[in-house]
Amino acid sequence: MAKLAIVNIGQLLTLAGPKRPRVGAELRDVGIIEGASMLVEDDRIVAIGKCADLQDRIEGAIQVIDADGRCVTPGLVDAHTHLVFAGNRADEFERRIGGATYQAIAAEGGGIRRTVQRTRAASEDELLSTARRYRDWMLRGGTTTLEAKSGYGLELEAELRILRVIRLLNEEGPVRMVPTLLAAHTVPAEYASRRADYVRLVIEEMIPAAASQGLARYCDAFCDDHAFTVEETRAVLLAAREHGLGLRLHAEQFAEGTGAALVAELGAVTADHLEAATESTLIRLRDAGVQPVLLPGSVFALGSARYPAARKMVDLGLAIVLATDFNPGSSPVPSMPFVLSLACVQMRLLPAEALAAATINAAWSLGMGEQVGSLEVGKQANFLIHEFDDYCELMYFIAAPARPRVFIAGREVTA
Amino acid sequence: MAKLAIVNIGQLLTLAGPKRPRVGAELRDVGIIEGASMLVEDDRIVAIGKCADLQDRIEGAIQVIDADGRCVTPGLVDAHTHLVFAGNRADEFERRIGGATYQAIAAEGGGIRRTVQRTRAASEDELLSTARRYRDWMLRGGTTTLEAKSGYGLELEAELRILRVIRLLNEEGPVRMVPTLLAAHTVPAEYASRRADYVRLVIEEMIPAAASQGLARYCDAFCDDHAFTVEETRAVLLAAREHGLGLRLHAEQFAEGTGAALVAELGAVTADHLEAATESTLIRLRDAGVQPVLLPGSVFALGSARYPAARKMVDLGLAIVLATDFNPGSSPVPSMPFVLSLACVQMRLLPAEALAAATINAAWSLGMGEQVGSLEVGKQANFLIHEFDDYCELMYFIAAPARPRVFIAGREVTA
Repeated sequence: MAKLAIVNIGQLLTLAGPKRPRVGAELRDVGIIEGASMLVEDDRIVAIGKCADLQDRIEGAIQVIDADGRCVTPGLVDAHTHLVFAGNRADEFERRIGGATYQAIAAEGGGIRRTVQRTRAASEDELLSTARRYRDWMLRGGTTTLEAKSGYGLELEAELRILRVIRLLNEEGPVRMVPTLLAAHTVPAEYASRRADYVRLVIEEMIPAAASQGLARYCDAFCDDHAFTVEETRAVLLAAREHGLGLRLHAEQFAEGTGAALVAELGAVTADHLEAATESTLIRLRDAGVQPVLLPGSVFALGSARYPAARKMVDLGLAIVLATDFNPGSSPVPSMPFVLSLACVQMRLLPAEALAAATINAAWSLGMGEQVGSLEVGKQANFLIHEFDDYCELMYFIAAPARPRVFIAGREVTA
Repeated sequence: MAKLAIVNIGQLLTLAGPKRPRVGAELRDVGIIEGASMLVEDDRIVAIGKCADLQDRIEGAIQVIDADGRCVTPGLVDAHTHLVFAGNRADEFERRIGGATYQAIAAEGGGIRRTVQRTRAASEDELLSTARRYRDWMLRGGTTTLEAKSGYGLELEAELRILRVIRLLNEEGPVRMVPTLLAAHTVPAEYASRRADYVRLVIEEMIPAAASQGLARYCDAFCDDHAFTVEETRAVLLAAREHGLGLRLHAEQFAEGTGAALVAELGAVTADHLEAATESTLIRLRDAGVQPVLLPGSVFALGSARYPAARKMVDLGLAIVLATDFNPGSSPVPSMPFVLSLACVQMRLLPAEALAAATINAAWSLGMGEQVGSLEVGKQANFLIHEFDDYCELMYFIAAPARPRVFIAGREVTA
């Protein structure tokens, strides 16, 4: 007997499909059932279908929730966030609008190094409480699973502290978190004149510690003109792979030829950003089975117009993912629905393609495609009852203060 | 004795200032008091100051709300919305992304004419229930006063029905609504070959009816290449002025020379859009005391990069206003906080300038500058207790699902 029945779903998007990331036309096949019901037992989906076909089982449910004709989708999966840091940079945001350059702000000790300084000085409790607040915003927007990176510690203890905060948040729930070590985010100030020593520290101490303590599932690095070179990045990722970590990479955000080839070479799961990637790079990523993680929120927040070539990626057959890139500098954007709107308005993804990229494809990119990201029998009951009748309204009503009812593992959650 | 005391306000933005719309550097003077309290009696503010200075009166309050160090601002004032319509156009949004042109969609009966058709067919109750839903979104985002236009009826009875819905919403509260007749929104299909007859209908029947029934305070028209000519618009606005209505105008959205001069000539209160306005036009508006109402949400939603020249307007000394332009076609954007972010990121307004444009200047543009838009003794107690410590975070955290506590006329309201 099912414990929970969601009935009278005007439009249910199952996102059911192949047992691998979706590509091409598959992205548009979001599995719509009209007049649907869904049955949940404990944390799992046990039945999905037309209301009429499930009538007997609905009558046996302990709790029945009437969706009132609204739209139900899988919970959103945010596959790229920098969730844990101390001190936002709203003041620098104001200064940049006023004309101050990044360089000027950085020269005064601002920018990412300021966040690093504050994060190092913050206690685990402080970091936990700030990250919980951002997590709550994400949850309100419908994010039920997210990836969270370290990268504002840049010293052994601070990086591990961030990863412990992510572990604590994951344990406290309800949002499931996947932890990534991003010690190679930038070279910290004290290593400015001896970069090689910092890379060695990452390889010899941080990666082994994070891996052996089970604090990270993935390792990421920022490969770009102003961050780490391709050679430095290769050394970091090779070490991570040896320690059993999956690989993700910030690649080709600002400059071409910064990392995407490496991603293909090393068998990384994702290449994130790719605003500067050329078509031949995209083909190489596709052929290596790498998923591009597109981060339009950072393009928008930086006031840039150079969005990644999402349309071309779909047409070439890449298994795209959409994520917020939430961070205090380039993407203070905690809302996945807004990222969906950006994907449609600015990158010309169809609403269905955007939704698949932000649910099932994102889940595959985190190694969780078998558990979450779609609504299928046996999967975790992570879903949203929207205020909308049609899923396209989720992208169309831009930045709407809508409040989906959020369910994780079969239980309604609020924040 | 004060009935309500808000204490422990980390940062109170009063927006107190001159008894007229703000220009130039005045826009940046948002009147910050740190460590503030505010006392409210019935619907009015009776005292504002440092916590310590108001201690005696705080102790006499019946209800004390602890702002917990957070930021308090005036409620947001949205001076340009098309709140009342039937049927959203999420399907056309999807088709446009897929490559269909506006022209193709319009040729099949889509676009604004489809909204008109549905709105005409909708009952007052249906329109009321849909508009209430959008009003609730706006309220959640912190909008406490808004202007709402007709314009999807385009026949006498349907235009009046929309205005009655606005009156009903205003009466039910809590959001205060200012009604505007926008019968000259577009030429309805049945008048395509006899535009002059439609303009005559607007002048001879709609304006007199709306004015005599007290259903509109302002009259607006859409003066642009694809809408009404300058001459048609002049005739409409002159008639409206004779009937005692204030004047607002959709001007210079797509083409230069479409209406801004007319606005100056006729003494209209606002010129709305102005994406195409030249510097000489802006100077003319300034000299005529016309407030520009800037609508970056529609620029964003149309995928355009041509934002109005807000920075130049401020520098020239115009009393800018920011609004959502909420409507089902070009701006399905119900969120004033997102408009504030757009103003900063895309139009390079400072957070303080944007906030002044979205509160006190917007209030003046609606003839309500003496009552709302700032937190001063004697004014209506319309205010927000934000989840933020600093008002810049309101713009910086883009599309954050934050939930300000909203107070209108001294009472906390929810939606």
